Amino acid sequence: MSDSFLKQLECGHCGATASIDRLIGTCPECGGPLLARYDLDQARGDRIPEPGRGLWRWAGLLPVLPEGRFELGAGGTPLLPSSIGEWLGIGPTWIKDEAANPTASFKARGMAVAIGRAKALGATSLVAPSAGNAACAAAAYAAASGLPLTVFMPKDVPESFQVEARAYAARVELVDGLIDECGKRAQAMAERDGSFNLATFREPGRVEGKKTMGFEIAEQMGWRLPEVIIYPTGGGTGIVALWKAFDELEALGLIGSERPRLVMVQAETCAPLVRAFEAGEAKAEPWQDGSTVADGMRVPKSFGDRLVLDALRKSQGRAVTVSDAQMIEYARIMAARSGLFPCPEGAACLAAQVQLAEEGWIGSGERVVLFNTGTALKYLHLWPNATHPG
Amino acid sequence: MSDSFLKQLECGHCGATASIDRLIGTCPECGGPLLARYDLDQARGDRIPEPGRGLWRWAGLLPVLPEGRFELGAGGTPLLPSSIGEWLGIGPTWIKDEAANPTASFKARGMAVAIGRAKALGATSLVAPSAGNAACAAAAYAAASGLPLTVFMPKDVPESFQVEARAYAARVELVDGLIDECGKRAQAMAERDGSFNLATFREPGRVEGKKTMGFEIAEQMGWRLPEVIIYPTGGGTGIVALWKAFDELEALGLIGSERPRLVMVQAETCAPLVRAFEAGEAKAEPWQDGSTVADGMRVPKSFGDRLVLDALRKSQGRAVTVSDAQMIEYARIMAARSGLFPCPEGAACLAAQVQLAEEGWIGSGERVVLFNTGTALKYLHLWPNATHPG
Repeated sequence: MSDSFLKQLECGHCGATASIDRLIGTCPECGGPLLARYDLDQARGDRIPEPGRGLWRWAGLLPVLPEGRFELGAGGTPLLPSSIGEWLGIGPTWIKDEAANPTASFKARGMAVAIGRAKALGATSLVAPSAGNAACAAAAYAAASGLPLTVFMPKDVPESFQVEARAYAARVELVDGLIDECGKRAQAMAERDGSFNLATFREPGRVEGKKTMGFEIAEQMGWRLPEVIIYPTGGGTGIVALWKAFDELEALGLIGSERPRLVMVQAETCAPLVRAFEAGEAKAEPWQDGSTVADGMRVPKSFGDRLVLDALRKSQGRAVTVSDAQMIEYARIMAARSGLFPCPEGAACLAAQVQLAEEGWIGSGERVVLFNTGTALKYLHLWPNATHPG
Repeated sequence: MSDSFLKQLECGHCGATASIDRLIGTCPECGGPLLARYDLDQARGDRIPEPGRGLWRWAGLLPVLPEGRFELGAGGTPLLPSSIGEWLGIGPTWIKDEAANPTASFKARGMAVAIGRAKALGATSLVAPSAGNAACAAAAYAAASGLPLTVFMPKDVPESFQVEARAYAARVELVDGLIDECGKRAQAMAERDGSFNLATFREPGRVEGKKTMGFEIAEQMGWRLPEVIIYPTGGGTGIVALWKAFDELEALGLIGSERPRLVMVQAETCAPLVRAFEAGEAKAEPWQDGSTVADGMRVPKSFGDRLVLDALRKSQGRAVTVSDAQMIEYARIMAARSGLFPCPEGAACLAAQVQLAEEGWIGSGERVVLFNTGTALKYLHLWPNATHPG
C-alpha cells in the first residue's frame, strides 16, 4: 500500500495552511473547513489507483497513514447501467449504488477516512452528530479502530439507525432537535473532553473519503465523465468532494478538463442550499422547521455552504427540490422496475432527473449518473405493508 | 464479455447428461440435481477472470448467455482480515462479507445466475420457495429481468423479508409451514402453470452463482486457499458450490491440489445435515419441527443432501451445531469488536470457529475464512433496544 502524497491542509475560506502532522479539525486562523492538498506532481508518477478492491486503492490521495487504513470493505461499489432511464424516456442512466458499502451507505467512505486519520494521529475518543446513516458508519469504524464514540441523533430518527449504531457499541444520545442541534452538542462535548469531532466539514477526512466516489465513477466510465451527476444533498460534502476528485484526476493526467454538470437535490421541505443557490447567495441561511422522510436530507444548515454553492456554480449545475411523495413514488418505481431497493435520498435523484429531463435541461443523449446513497432496509416504514412505524 | 464454456449438464446422482440449449431444471432420467460442466481445457486458454468487478468476471464458467447477465452488482464482496480471531485467541481469521451484495445477502449470486439463465433460455415466469433472503434476491433479479415472480415463504418469516420482496413487485405467498412446505407449493405451481422453479438444487444455476464465492476467496488470498472455511448451511448449495469452484480452478491451473477443510454449521434446533454427517449417512432424514432465529438455517430437508455430505467428507471437514443464544452472543461480539453487522448465520460461523479452536481441530496458525452471508438489518428484532418483533 503506497504512501499518501498529502502535503498540507488548506482552509476553504481564508486559504491559511496547516501542518498535516497534528490532529486538527478546522482552520486555526478563521475556523473554516480544511481541505487536504497533495503533492500531485509527485503522485503523477505513482500507480494510482492501485490494483485490488475498495477505497484504499486511492490511498495515495487520502490523508490517512497506513496504520489508520481500517478495512471494512468501503468503496468499490457498482456503477449500474440502468434501463430505467430508457423506460421513463429520459435517456441513458447509471446508478452508483452506495448501499454496497459497509453499514449499507455512502457514509462509510467519509468515516473510514476521518476515523482512520484521527486514530493514526492519536485521537483517543470520537464524537459525531448525525441525521442517521453517518452515526452507523462512524460507529462501525470506531469499533474497527477500537476508539470509543458518542453519536448525537435527532430523537425521532428511525429505530433502525439507533439499533445499528448501538450494535457497534456506540453511545447513542437522542436530541430534541435536528442535526444542527446535535452538532452543537457534539461540539460542546469535543470542547469539554477532547473527543475528536467528526461533524461534516469540521474535519478534512470526510470530504476526502467521499472523493473516492468521483474517482470510481471516472474509472468505471473509462475516464470519460458523464454529462450530468445528480446527488442528494444534506450537508453537501459529496458535492464538494466530487468536484475536488475531478480536479485531482485532471492533475494526475487521468481525465481532461471536461466536467459534468452537478445537480444538487434537497427535500422541498428542507432546502436551505437550494434556496441559496436560486437566490444567487454565497452562503445559505438556516432553514426553519425542516422536515422530510429522507433523514439524510434533514439538514437545516451546512457548515460547508460556501464550498458547496461554489462547486455547484463552477460546474454550471442546478439545485432542485423534490417532495416526500415523489421520493416515495420513485423509490417504488426503482425497486419494481430495476431491482434496486433505494433509500428516499436515492429515489430523490431519479425524481430530479425526470424533472430536469422534462424541462429540457438534460438532453436526451446526455449520460446521467444518479447516486443511491444507501439501502431502503433502514427505511422499511416507508414501504407498503410495513407495520412498524420506523 | 466472454462466451461461456458451458458444455453440458450432468446429474449429480445418476450421471446422466442433458443438453444446455433447453431450459430444464432437474435430471430428465432420475429427477436428481443437475450440475453444469464446462470445457475446462478450452477455458484454460482464456482470460478468466476478466478484469473489472463482480460475478460476471467469471462468465466463462457460468451457464448464462450474454443476454441473461443482468447487472445489479452481485459478487466482488470484500474478504476482510479480522482482528477478532486474534482477540478471541483463535488464530488468523478472514470474513467474507456477503452483505455487500445486492439485497444485502449471498443469495444474490445464485439468483443472478439462475434467473439470467432462465430468462435467456425463454422462461416467461418464475417461482421460488424461500426461508427469507432468497425471496428478496430472486425478486430483485426478477425485476431486473422483467419476469414475474411468485415466492412462497413461511408465514412467520420476519417482516423485513416480506416488505423487501414485495417492493420488487414479487407476489409473496405466506405458507403455514417451513421451507419444505413452501417448496411443495412452488413445485405444484411450476407444474400447474409452467413457471420456472428456482428452488435450491432444482435447477443448476444457483450452485454456479454461489461458486463465485470460492473463486473470489482463491483470488483474494493470492491463489493460496485457507486451511479452513466455515459456512452456515441451510440447503447446502454453498458447500457444494465451494468444492466445485476449487476443482474448476485447479483444472484451469490457477490453484494446486490443496483444499481447505469445509465446516458446515447448522442451528442445533434444525440440523438435519449435521445429524446425517455425524451418523455417517449418505442422505439426510427430514428434521421434525425445526426452528431457529437464523431464518436461513430453518431448512429441515435439503434436496442436495447427498452432494453436500459428499463434498464435506471429501474435504476432511466437520459439521457442527450452535445454539440461537450463541448466534446472538457472537453477533454482538462481531459488531462491537469488528464493526460488522452480521446476520445470525454469520455469527454462527464465529461460534463454530471458537468451538473447533477450543477442541484443537483448528490449529492456532491455520487460516480460517468465515462467511457473513447477509446483513443484520433484516434481523433488527434480535438486537437490544429494538421494539419491533420482526
